[in-house]
Amino acid sequence: MVAFADRLVLRQRELGHPLCVGLDPHLDRIPDAFRAGTMTPHDPASADAVERFFMEVIDRLAGRVAAVKPQIAFFEQLGWRGLQALERLVARCREKELLVVLDAKRGDIGSTAAGYARAFFGETAPLRADALTVNAYLGLDTLEPFIDAASAAAGGLFVLVKTSNPGSGDLQGLTVDGRPVYLHLASALGTRAERLAGETGFSGLGAVVGATYPEDAKRVREAMPEALVLVPGYGAQGASAAQAVAGFVRGPNGLEGGLVNASRSILFPAASDWGAAFDASLKQATDELGAAVA
Amino acid sequence: MVAFADRLVLRQRELGHPLCVGLDPHLDRIPDAFRAGTMTPHDPASADAVERFFMEVIDRLAGRVAAVKPQIAFFEQLGWRGLQALERLVARCREKELLVVLDAKRGDIGSTAAGYARAFFGETAPLRADALTVNAYLGLDTLEPFIDAASAAAGGLFVLVKTSNPGSGDLQGLTVDGRPVYLHLASALGTRAERLAGETGFSGLGAVVGATYPEDAKRVREAMPEALVLVPGYGAQGASAAQAVAGFVRGPNGLEGGLVNASRSILFPAASDWGAAFDASLKQATDELGAAVA
Repeated sequence: MVAFADRLVLRQRELGHPLCVGLDPHLDRIPDAFRAGTMTPHDPASADAVERFFMEVIDRLAGRVAAVKPQIAFFEQLGWRGLQALERLVARCREKELLVVLDAKRGDIGSTAAGYARAFFGETAPLRADALTVNAYLGLDTLEPFIDAASAAAGGLFVLVKTSNPGSGDLQGLTVDGRPVYLHLASALGTRAERLAGETGFSGLGAVVGATYPEDAKRVREAMPEALVLVPGYGAQGASAAQAVAGFVRGPNGLEGGLVNASRSILFPAASDWGAAFDASLKQATDELGAAVA
Repeated sequence: MVAFADRLVLRQRELGHPLCVGLDPHLDRIPDAFRAGTMTPHDPASADAVERFFMEVIDRLAGRVAAVKPQIAFFEQLGWRGLQALERLVARCREKELLVVLDAKRGDIGSTAAGYARAFFGETAPLRADALTVNAYLGLDTLEPFIDAASAAAGGLFVLVKTSNPGSGDLQGLTVDGRPVYLHLASALGTRAERLAGETGFSGLGAVVGATYPEDAKRVREAMPEALVLVPGYGAQGASAAQAVAGFVRGPNGLEGGLVNASRSILFPAASDWGAAFDASLKQATDELGAAVA
């Protein structure tokens, strides 16, 4: 099996940009052509509409991006039918050779973490992902079952290090021995990079670092020189393409070593012809990010 | 609607103990009488077996504990069928007047946090809980959608403050201005107690504080005088009943203000007659904890 880090980086070198598209079913924004009824969470028709919409999105993304990032929260609000839809969407991604970074932000102790790891990395897992976002507030020991499972499945992990929201400093930014908490975490993760290392020099033990804090992204890169970074905050959250790739490193074809995610700005463009507007938004993002990493 | 804090505390005063039973479907430990085939996650029969087992558990718990704590990770490993089983189990809990503390440890930014909040507190949510565990590493702003939703639904939140695992000090215990990170978080939460306050003097904006660190529980109580505490680590994880209630406060009938969780020690007793052993383990835990709060 080829390590997640290599699968991602090699594919991105072919494509020439680091865009990842988030699959976030905001029920109130699903385009008219796909909507069903009132789109309330408890209505089974809502899950069907979400599935139809994202099947179309996935087909339009195939061959144009390396990875997608389904946000499991929005599927969970639809109950088990939402999870069923997500399982089918993940299967379609696999057919279309899109890597799946499941944005679940899971984190729990011992046996429970192992449960999540089996849910998302197990060989026969109904919702098998290529990579998973995880939360390390509970402690580094709680990452071990995830690292073990990712290693066995040649998968990746993106640990929440410095997030893109305004309050991300509340805990992540508290100063300990002259350095913020998030850098202590980054350093501890950096020492474990080997566990999910690929042959490109990158490690699938990655970090989430918000595009809205480019200086922080550079500091995280120093602490985790081999890590892939997953960068939310580009697009609707206001960060520019240049800010989004601040934590990338120079490779043979340009800056690399991460994924820049956009969701709403691509999924829900303001236009009457959704399909054409989607394609145009996608092209704009890949062009912008392609230029930023050139 | 009666606030979660009051519903919990008033019920516990009737019962005389703070035991909460965790519903953790470890597939390899489901008793023989309920098992189906190999109990692998992808087999639909596994979800059916888990549902049958916990229906029986819930019926045995009715009238004997105030609350149960389903661990969603173990249901997620079964895919959408696991979530479907969990929805039915939560509905049964409601019929049996057991409060449901959904152990999901969710945490995400803005609109995504709102998605989770709708999933678990929405009026028509398929998986509606009375309270939810959440992770605040992303920042206090990320708790707001959860607090808003809990407030509207008269629900509760248990924020991960100091967990029961050996590595819980890695981030939670880092020292900032002479105090550990977890106490900075507890103080910030303490100032928001009013948002989910009940008439008993307790607030449903609670904290998770592991039974394995009783001294830490006392410090958290000072920072969050009105908070309910959810205490994992009693039973299989080795903490005593006295350690588990270290963060409780003296009320009219004894120590109160929290839930002490036990899962494996009650669900999976080592005995050939599962039903009798379950009842005996349950009685032992309620007696022990009842004596500890007397």
